[in-house]
Amino acid sequence: MNKEAIGVEALQELLTRGPFNRWLNFSVLSANDEGIEVEVTWREEWVVNPKRRYTHGGILAAIIDTAADYAIAAALGRPVPTISIRVDYHKAAQPGNLKAKAHVVRMGGQYSTAEAYVYDVEGSLVASGRGTYYTAPPRS
Amino acid sequence: MNKEAIGVEALQELLTRGPFNRWLNFSVLSANDEGIEVEVTWREEWVVNPKRRYTHGGILAAIIDTAADYAIAAALGRPVPTISIRVDYHKAAQPGNLKAKAHVVRMGGQYSTAEAYVYDVEGSLVASGRGTYYTAPPRS
Amino acid sequence: MNKEAIGVEALQELLTRGPFNRWLNFSVLSANDEGIEVEVTWREEWVVNPKRRYTHGGILAAIIDTAADYAIAAALGRPVPTISIRVDYHKAAQPGNLKAKAHVVRMGGQYSTAEAYVYDVEGSLVASGRGTYYTAPPRS
Amino acid sequence: MNKEAIGVEALQELLTRGPFNRWLNFSVLSANDEGIEVEVTWREEWVVNPKRRYTHGGILAAIIDTAADYAIAAALGRPVPTISIRVDYHKAAQPGNLKAKAHVVRMGGQYSTAEAYVYDVEGSLVASGRGTYYTAPPRS
Repeated sequence: MNKEAIGVEALQELLTRGPFNRWLNFSVLSANDEGIEVEVTWREEWVVNPKRRYTHGGILAAIIDTAADYAIAAALGRPVPTISIRVDYHKAAQPGNLKAKAHVVRMGGQYSTAEAYVYDVEGSLVASGRGTYYTAPPRS
Repeated sequence: MNKEAIGVEALQELLTRGPFNRWLNFSVLSANDEGIEVEVTWREEWVVNPKRRYTHGGILAAIIDTAADYAIAAALGRPVPTISIRVDYHKAAQPGNLKAKAHVVRMGGQYSTAEAYVYDVEGSLVASGRGTYYTAPPRS
Repeated sequence: MNKEAIGVEALQELLTRGPFNRWLNFSVLSANDEGIEVEVTWREEWVVNPKRRYTHGGILAAIIDTAADYAIAAALGRPVPTISIRVDYHKAAQPGNLKAKAHVVRMGGQYSTAEAYVYDVEGSLVASGRGTYYTAPPRS
Repeated sequence: MNKEAIGVEALQELLTRGPFNRWLNFSVLSANDEGIEVEVTWREEWVVNPKRRYTHGGILAAIIDTAADYAIAAALGRPVPTISIRVDYHKAAQPGNLKAKAHVVRMGGQYSTAEAYVYDVEGSLVASGRGTYYTAPPRS
C-alpha cells in the first residue's frame, strides 16, 4: 500500500508550487512505503491567542490536509482535491516548527482516505486527523 | 438558543486580538439570535494551485473553525478551545473575499457544537462544516 | 435546492427494502423542499447502558446516515453510497421513538453533502451530523 | 500510551452488559499496549441492500464507535461517553463476521481520541474512523 510513484524531490516541487504551501514553508523530509513526513516553519502570524501564543487551529488543519493529500500524491504522482477533513486537537501547539506524518489508509478508484499526525518541536502530538480525497482519474 | 451575550463590536475586538485572525482580516458583519456572519479579505498567499488560483482548503478550514467558535463566543462572551472540526469542500473557492455564516447547534455544559458555511463573492457555498468546542467553565 | 424527485410513498418503499432499515422501523413523515423527516420505533435492543438505558451511539449514527442519505434520495430518486459521516452526540437518548430531520447541504456531480438532526420524544436534540455521499451517475 | 488497566475478560464483561453490544455479539479477541481487537457476528438484519446484501453503514459506525471506546476503556477501566465520531467507508462489507482493531491516539484529561479499523472475513479494510470521548473523571 502507498507504493510511492514519486520521491522526495518531486513531492517537494509539487508542494512548492502552491503559494499557501510556500507561506507555510513545507519541507518534505521523507516519502516511502510507510507514508510521508513534512515540516513547516513557524511564523508569528500563526498565533491565535496573543498571551499564550499557541498556533491557530486552522494552521493545524491546513497541515493535516496538506500532509494527508501529499501522502496520496506520493502514490498517484499528483495532489488531489479534498472532499472532507476531520481534525482533532489534542493540545495547544506552542511556537516552533511543526512536523507531520501522513499515510494512506485506503486508496480507492473514486475516493481515497489518508491520516495525518502533527507534532511540536518536543515531539508531542498536538493534532491529528484524516481526509478523504477525490482520486478518480483526471478527464482527458 | 444562541442568545448573544455580546455584540458585534465586542466580538470584533476579541477576534482582532489574534494575529492569525488579523492576517485573515476577519470582520464581524452581524451577530444575533440566528448566529453570526463574518467576512475575510482575500490574500494572494491563500492560493493553493497557481494555475487555477483557488484557495487552499486549510484557509477554508480556518474560516469554518473561527466562525463556528465565534458563534459560541457570541453566547458565552469568550472564544473557546476547539475539540474537533469537520469540513466538507463543495467547490473551488476562486480569488475574492469570502463570507461565513455560523450558528450554534447545541450549547452544552462541557462541550458544544456549532456549524458554519462559507460563501464566495458570488454567494456560492464553497465549504461547510462543524466543530465541537470545549465550553466547560474556566477554572478560577 | 433539494427539489424532490419522489414523494413520501416512494421514499418509504425504497427505505423499507433494506432489512436494517426495517429493523430500525423507519417511517417517512414528510419530504419537501425543506428536506425530509423520518421516525424510528424504539427497540429494547438499542440500549447501551443497562442501568441508565440510553440508546447506543451506533443507532444514532445509523439514523443520521440514513436520514441524510434519503434527503439526497428525495432529490435523486435513489439512495446513494456513503463516503463518510460525522456524528456529534449532544445528550443521552432515553428510551422512546426518535425523529430525524435531514436536508441537502449541497448537491454535486460527483459527491454531495447532507445534514441530519435527531430528536427524542420530548423534542430535544440528541445527536446531529452530516454525511458525504457518492452521487456520480450510475454506470450503465 | 494506552497502558491497559484491565484485560480481555474484564473488557468482555463490560461490553456484554449492553444490550446493543450483545445484539452485535462483540467478542474481545485481544487487549494490549497496541490496542484492542474485537469481532462481531454477522446478522441477516444488518443488510441494507437486499440484492447486493452488504452491511448498513450504521452497523459499521457502531462497530467503530464501540471499538474506539473500548480501546480507551482498556486504559481507563470503564467505557466513556462519545463526543463525536467520523467514519470513512472504503468498500461494501459483504455478509460475514467483521473484525475491528482500535487504539488510543491520545489520552487527555478532559477528552481523548481513538481510531478504529473494520475488516471483513477476507481481511479487507471496509471502514475506518475515529472518535473523541469524554474522559473527565466521573463526579463522585
